[in-house]
Amino acid sequence: MTAYSAPIRDMLFTLRSVGDFDRVAALPGNEDISADLVGAIFEEAGKFAGEVLAPLNQPGDVAGCQCKDGAVTTPDGVKQAFAAFCDKGWHAMPAKAEYGGMSLPTLVSTPVMEMWKASNMAFSLCQMLTIGAISAIDHHGSEAQKALYLPKMVAGTWTGTMNLTEPQAGSDLAAVHAHAVPDGDAYRITGTKIFITWGEHDVAENIIHLVLARLAGAPPGVKGISLFIAPKFLVNPDGSLGARNDLVCASIEHKLGIHASPTAVMSFGENGGAHATLVGEPNRGLEYMFTMMNHARLNVGLEGVAISERAYQQALAYAFDRVQGRPIGEAAGKPIAYHPDVKRMLLDMKSRVEAMRALAYYTASQMDVARQSADDGEAKKAQARVDLLIPVVKGWCTENSVGVASTGIQVHGGMGFIEETGAAQHFRDARITTIYEGTTAIQANDLIGRKIVRDGGAAARELIVDIEATVAASAGAAEVAALAGALGGPMVHFADSVSWILDHNGAAPARTAAAAVPMLHLTGIVAGYWLLVKQAGLAAQMLAAGEGDADFLKGKLVYARFFAKHVLPGVEALYRAISEGSEAVEDFDPALLAS
Amino acid sequence: MTAYSAPIRDMLFTLRSVGDFDRVAALPGNEDISADLVGAIFEEAGKFAGEVLAPLNQPGDVAGCQCKDGAVTTPDGVKQAFAAFCDKGWHAMPAKAEYGGMSLPTLVSTPVMEMWKASNMAFSLCQMLTIGAISAIDHHGSEAQKALYLPKMVAGTWTGTMNLTEPQAGSDLAAVHAHAVPDGDAYRITGTKIFITWGEHDVAENIIHLVLARLAGAPPGVKGISLFIAPKFLVNPDGSLGARNDLVCASIEHKLGIHASPTAVMSFGENGGAHATLVGEPNRGLEYMFTMMNHARLNVGLEGVAISERAYQQALAYAFDRVQGRPIGEAAGKPIAYHPDVKRMLLDMKSRVEAMRALAYYTASQMDVARQSADDGEAKKAQARVDLLIPVVKGWCTENSVGVASTGIQVHGGMGFIEETGAAQHFRDARITTIYEGTTAIQANDLIGRKIVRDGGAAARELIVDIEATVAASAGAAEVAALAGALGGPMVHFADSVSWILDHNGAAPARTAAAAVPMLHLTGIVAGYWLLVKQAGLAAQMLAAGEGDADFLKGKLVYARFFAKHVLPGVEALYRAISEGSEAVEDFDPALLAS
Repeated sequence: MTAYSAPIRDMLFTLRSVGDFDRVAALPGNEDISADLVGAIFEEAGKFAGEVLAPLNQPGDVAGCQCKDGAVTTPDGVKQAFAAFCDKGWHAMPAKAEYGGMSLPTLVSTPVMEMWKASNMAFSLCQMLTIGAISAIDHHGSEAQKALYLPKMVAGTWTGTMNLTEPQAGSDLAAVHAHAVPDGDAYRITGTKIFITWGEHDVAENIIHLVLARLAGAPPGVKGISLFIAPKFLVNPDGSLGARNDLVCASIEHKLGIHASPTAVMSFGENGGAHATLVGEPNRGLEYMFTMMNHARLNVGLEGVAISERAYQQALAYAFDRVQGRPIGEAAGKPIAYHPDVKRMLLDMKSRVEAMRALAYYTASQMDVARQSADDGEAKKAQARVDLLIPVVKGWCTENSVGVASTGIQVHGGMGFIEETGAAQHFRDARITTIYEGTTAIQANDLIGRKIVRDGGAAARELIVDIEATVAASAGAAEVAALAGALGGPMVHFADSVSWILDHNGAAPARTAAAAVPMLHLTGIVAGYWLLVKQAGLAAQMLAAGEGDADFLKGKLVYARFFAKHVLPGVEALYRAISEGSEAVEDFDPALLAS
Repeated sequence: MTAYSAPIRDMLFTLRSVGDFDRVAALPGNEDISADLVGAIFEEAGKFAGEVLAPLNQPGDVAGCQCKDGAVTTPDGVKQAFAAFCDKGWHAMPAKAEYGGMSLPTLVSTPVMEMWKASNMAFSLCQMLTIGAISAIDHHGSEAQKALYLPKMVAGTWTGTMNLTEPQAGSDLAAVHAHAVPDGDAYRITGTKIFITWGEHDVAENIIHLVLARLAGAPPGVKGISLFIAPKFLVNPDGSLGARNDLVCASIEHKLGIHASPTAVMSFGENGGAHATLVGEPNRGLEYMFTMMNHARLNVGLEGVAISERAYQQALAYAFDRVQGRPIGEAAGKPIAYHPDVKRMLLDMKSRVEAMRALAYYTASQMDVARQSADDGEAKKAQARVDLLIPVVKGWCTENSVGVASTGIQVHGGMGFIEETGAAQHFRDARITTIYEGTTAIQANDLIGRKIVRDGGAAARELIVDIEATVAASAGAAEVAALAGALGGPMVHFADSVSWILDHNGAAPARTAAAAVPMLHLTGIVAGYWLLVKQAGLAAQMLAAGEGDADFLKGKLVYARFFAKHVLPGVEALYRAISEGSEAVEDFDPALLAS
């Protein structure tokens, strides 16, 4: 069994130190947000995550979902937990107040989402996909569509899905084949969609599928794809359920992880076409999906934070429970947490979790500023920062999580390989996060192409300016000044990497594309460490002022120091891979491997 | 379905380029070894691996083993495959001719072992454990024990196990509780052993358990543990099977991977004590286990090579099969192998496989020289090299394999997460290799303690001398000279790391212990790259001479170049973690994490 205790103190400290909570709370529209309210929300959410969702995580993994004749049964207890989740308002929480939600800042809803993902990632996906569908309808749907679908989707009475991928159209959505034909005011959709998360299940009375499909005569490629709403049960104008729609779950996948999240193959239109309504205008479906992308990618990046936190908690508990051998310098047997290499592994896990969480929450706060700030310049700057960092949050946090979960197994020794221990599940669950919602390579290409090259490096340079400001502001306390000083070299490597990409992208795009993933990792380490330095700065201030729990605050300095010595030196290696190693990839003809 | 084709051309090239095959073939006792014989063995073994073992790998993973009333059933087909494996002489192959084996050099049996592990790791473990038990009896057993057990164990009629671990005694075997009491000429053993690989099964008629246990009055700790033989069925003096012994498989583990390898909890002496005979002298059991350690660790390191090769083959096949999008610079859709980041991932996998294989085979060849050379100085030097590199082969190759198998999943995108694809199994199977036969930390402590500190860095300095000789010898061809030139900095970092360990181990052993795993990785990268340079040197020579397949040989230069630019720069980061980062771990009180 593996417990989960929401790390509320860490979350609140991150909100304050790097999330600029006071600034976010002062944004127009956030008048009701206070530290007390946030603390209360976190406490209640933490209880639900720890007491209801976490205990279902392992049994759900073991039982998995079952599909029979198009009906999917979720593991025992999931249905009841989802009902309780909705009853307590957690499902609605992230939505706007006008639909029944709480209109919370992203900065505040993000830690709560982290709790759902850490306690039960498979469970959390149902809400996450529904949020995406809600957002699509809210942004691009008609008033009639909003009125018909949103209140019940927000409440969790109905859930939502995203039907994008097809067997031949994964990373390349231009290859979507599913098609729609007009039928009166509506449309009929035919096609097969795969990897549909929570595409069919038994936890809600209806499922609202958002579906990408082509209209006859639409332009080829990404500019000929439209977005449709196709509910599992047709919805009457009064909101009551009508006939079953012509769409069915053909099967569910047998996956490495997230077993309690049904991943469906959806078959549309086996009997003439699934009834659907168009969202917005024809041929703009992919563009509409893009408007939700930042939130979706933040949330999947958050899965990297969450699974890492869970794996860390599990490893920490085991390391303090298991006694084996006599650690160096100790007189007698002690828990393995005192063995030097176990200490190293725990510090590695914890310092990465801290850096990832800081990066995710910081980015969430910038989303709030971008959306709500009355100051246009501030909003624009925040939006540019969000756009720059979102692929890094998604790519870097998820890539880290696979390593952190692997280290979690290693801390357990042989017990880590035994499924009952629970460490292995995190390793399996984490493995999807670098793939869905755009693989790491997709994120990395977004980072170098749309976020660095397109604006000539302007957003990247603004980040450097802010990092320099942190270094300048950290001259006071010696320990913090030393930590900030360690930013110098990596910052130069980041700047040089940006320049290298700008210099080479035009003439040698295949070379810069080969540098993309190393660049994503480099950016993640530099930005993550920058925020750790900010956290350390606040911790030092509070320690000097005698404010707060000294051990907790000392920890923030320790994690930053460990990261500086063990993770940050990797920046130079990545810079060399980018600037000196990409040509080796560009030159390479893969046919050689087949020879 | 996932196929496996033994990479015989790569294996033979590695034998020649870094395994010093001609030297090994010329050793006294190897008179019958020729390149033709080795080629023929590899061809036949490759056929068996590809045609018989590989097709059972995935079905065996899905079915797993079943345990009922102490009897273990292996997945369909395993029993038949094991019978064929024995019939064809593969089980006996690695053993001495006097017991029915082929008395092959380790250099030659190692690639064959790699094939078994790559095609079906779970299957291969049965033979691997039996080899260990054979070796223990051969080295330390009485003539009567050898005569009674070895011929049938070599033939695979009976298999062997190693019963070391107990619930409270994992990495710390000093804590072994199982005990033995005299009973006439023999002993009666009582105790529980866990994680017993192939501890119970249905593929052979008897199982010969080697068991660590304490005699009454034995000294505490590691110097009071004796080694016993306790067969599942007692063996009559004529070799026929007698009564069932008092030992039983209490259960088998539900594991993350290697599902077709039964991992048993063994209960000895529930009815008065399991009949056992002592191996060698009392209280020397652990010392006896140590004499087999180098081979056991080479073989587990080889699992890292093998699983990586298998994951690479799987990813390569998918990357050439899957068409998605239009790679940069291409006019039309092409297989994803042509996308820059997929190229990068394939090169990363392949270049690591090459470096790992080179390191494993090189170490195997040094074992042969150490054992068989008539030149005492040469033998001693080879033994010192083996002792230095064995923990690196084990630790570095296995740690790499987890990353390589993970990259293999990533190449597949969403399909990689679907179990039927097969990529996920390699990721799960690989995960045990860094744990059993001594965790990575155990290997790393062995490296810095017994292999670097104990001889004052002499063996490490000898390695540096040999690396320098390679650099000097590579001055000819410009491309090879450049590759060799890249060894300079890393070699200095290796030397400096050795000095740092020697300087600090006495006064701050907890600090050097915290540096142990980074030091293991650093050594692996430097030694692995050194051997890639040697391979590249031979490839360049052959290309210049117009000898061999040009594309195949060019590949060797490409993989070395990629490794130089993408992996080798990590050495400096590791050096900094060692020399500047270990104090951060030493200083750290883990109680802070629990605060």
